[in-house]
Amino acid sequence: MDILELQNEIILNLQQIQENNPLIHNITNYVTVNDCANVLLAIGASPIMADDEDEVEEITQIANALVINLGTLNKRTISSMLLSGKKANELGIPVILDPVGVGVSTLRNNAVKDLFEQVKFNVIRGNLSELSYIAGYDTKAKGVDVSQKDQSIDASIVVHKVANMYHCVAAITGAIDVISDGTSIIRLANGHPMLSKITGTGCMTTALIGGYLGASKNPLVSTVAGILTMSIAGEIAYKKYGEVGTGSFHVGIVDAISKIDKQILCERWKIIM
Amino acid sequence: MDILELQNEIILNLQQIQENNPLIHNITNYVTVNDCANVLLAIGASPIMADDEDEVEEITQIANALVINLGTLNKRTISSMLLSGKKANELGIPVILDPVGVGVSTLRNNAVKDLFEQVKFNVIRGNLSELSYIAGYDTKAKGVDVSQKDQSIDASIVVHKVANMYHCVAAITGAIDVISDGTSIIRLANGHPMLSKITGTGCMTTALIGGYLGASKNPLVSTVAGILTMSIAGEIAYKKYGEVGTGSFHVGIVDAISKIDKQILCERWKIIM
Amino acid sequence: MDILELQNEIILNLQQIQENNPLIHNITNYVTVNDCANVLLAIGASPIMADDEDEVEEITQIANALVINLGTLNKRTISSMLLSGKKANELGIPVILDPVGVGVSTLRNNAVKDLFEQVKFNVIRGNLSELSYIAGYDTKAKGVDVSQKDQSIDASIVVHKVANMYHCVAAITGAIDVISDGTSIIRLANGHPMLSKITGTGCMTTALIGGYLGASKNPLVSTVAGILTMSIAGEIAYKKYGEVGTGSFHVGIVDAISKIDKQILCERWKIIM
Repeated sequence: MDILELQNEIILNLQQIQENNPLIHNITNYVTVNDCANVLLAIGASPIMADDEDEVEEITQIANALVINLGTLNKRTISSMLLSGKKANELGIPVILDPVGVGVSTLRNNAVKDLFEQVKFNVIRGNLSELSYIAGYDTKAKGVDVSQKDQSIDASIVVHKVANMYHCVAAITGAIDVISDGTSIIRLANGHPMLSKITGTGCMTTALIGGYLGASKNPLVSTVAGILTMSIAGEIAYKKYGEVGTGSFHVGIVDAISKIDKQILCERWKIIM
Repeated sequence: MDILELQNEIILNLQQIQENNPLIHNITNYVTVNDCANVLLAIGASPIMADDEDEVEEITQIANALVINLGTLNKRTISSMLLSGKKANELGIPVILDPVGVGVSTLRNNAVKDLFEQVKFNVIRGNLSELSYIAGYDTKAKGVDVSQKDQSIDASIVVHKVANMYHCVAAITGAIDVISDGTSIIRLANGHPMLSKITGTGCMTTALIGGYLGASKNPLVSTVAGILTMSIAGEIAYKKYGEVGTGSFHVGIVDAISKIDKQILCERWKIIM
Repeated sequence: MDILELQNEIILNLQQIQENNPLIHNITNYVTVNDCANVLLAIGASPIMADDEDEVEEITQIANALVINLGTLNKRTISSMLLSGKKANELGIPVILDPVGVGVSTLRNNAVKDLFEQVKFNVIRGNLSELSYIAGYDTKAKGVDVSQKDQSIDASIVVHKVANMYHCVAAITGAIDVISDGTSIIRLANGHPMLSKITGTGCMTTALIGGYLGASKNPLVSTVAGILTMSIAGEIAYKKYGEVGTGSFHVGIVDAISKIDKQILCERWKIIM
């Protein structure tokens, strides 16, 4: 796929969401869940949040994609994640993983290990620390942020390795976003540093990838589309509210996502292949 | 009650909230809980969210109304809902049910069955799919949204049936809201389609009904008042922020609820009896 | 410490947050958690929310401060609070308690009793009802609000007593905020009544105290700094959005916190020693 084909596929994927309103099952955290639901609605998808092990399989089977997010992980929901993930695999429903905070605690490390043993993921999106941990590098994550030490690791090597280890699309979001399907590497230069001043922009990005992938069959395209949507929304919100403060900027991100269209994408995307 | 009496009662109910600041106990979901608390404060009520089975009865007994919302249902909170509901019944505290997603999973269907067996509800508010399921119609809900198929069911027949089955006020909110106390049918033509682009407008409506009912003794009036408050707020927010995006529209809904008064209600309500 | 020294220390503490970006571990409620994370980011700190007993000690040990908030308390998280608190004490990491709703239920009263037996707190912040309960006065709290009856209790006596009972800084926030380290009493006259129309302004204030204390070693200074930050943000947000509504006011609070600097503090603080 060359850059023109990729761009056409992204535009098509946005149309597909808006025409088909895919239902996205999210097993996610209680910090950013409201924002995740609202950005899915903003882009044209339909969110459903459900995490009890007694119902998650029934929810997954009516969904078009499943997003598993490890923020505020607890033992009760790990089994729900495993059940949902296996059901999604069985039915051919795409599964997206956001391994929030992996590397920080044994609970998270073991949960990710169990998930990888039992569930096939189509997309894994995280920050440099999280993906580096998954790639097997020695990392020392500081909460959900990227630690200083990890800055020295080359993100493109990490995504390429993770993509090959798990036969999926792997993405690291940061100042430059780096995405790989195991073969090619795509870099995205959109976004604004102020995005790191709002909790959940990572979670929202993963939810958006879920929205796009629920309406298509191409994980690489949907991953690029989801990340671009958040990054470009960040640029637009910054232009309008950067000087006002982070509360308005947060609102402006959702506004911008709800107004994303072909023209805005084409004017702003900075895709490097 | 004719339309003038109903309108006078709605205005009175709004005054009652603002004078008495009723305390509303919510057992609800983690997706929309912040919005539910904020709209209760905006209308003049006082929210309390508590869901552990070891304390819910103590919380309910100091409350003026109890709102039970099944979003993000889990086994831990089902027993809390049953305990709270029974305590409220025992003390004559009104109970409002929002059966989010019933029809979608066995867990939800069984929870609703148990709730109906053990708790008397004064108001049940949901969408067409949810109330149709409760009325015994064959439905196939798509997440928390109304499925295409269900559009063919007549909402007025459903609310009339549910109201008679459970001796309560039943309400279906949608393009046209339909409310019944088992005898009369009231339709409300306020609102804006953009309300469906924000997660939790249904949950917030149910919370508002709880706020109104915590300050009065008339479930029919409070149900109409709660729905009108959300629908009219949606109209005002749309006028101001419709073109800006769903983030600002979301903020505008809370703004408008906090400014609702007699004059705004009288100018805008579209009540059809 | 005289008032000039205190003011200098507050300015220094704000610089320390912004330079060191302390990591704040929050075990908190699902109602206001998103706001707590966002105000911590707004002030320059880094939030991490984690509450499973299997990982909280690992999270606490990488944090610069631990905030324990009892809102939406449940049995699962009480043991997490105890484990985290003990780990923080062991490592000399400051611990801040927000005893939301204590006095309202046996579950909360027992949790607070257990916490005081097993954990040493550096700061306790609550409303007049909550701190009065901790001080051993007969209170009848109404949800998370201050009951009428409690208005007759003198807040300065309460904070002085709690500070001495638990060898900590105790703070009651309200129309006038009162803070004591067991010796001196500091009163703060900033803020706006509209802050009580937004859920979680108390929780956010406690989170901010955690942010300040994660970057310093002076609980009295950090408590004053955290409360001033919220109160002054409330004044600024009211000036801009007071007439618009509580939704915009809520956004404006976060905006103002993200813009707080030395000049704004110095122009507005009303510290009475």
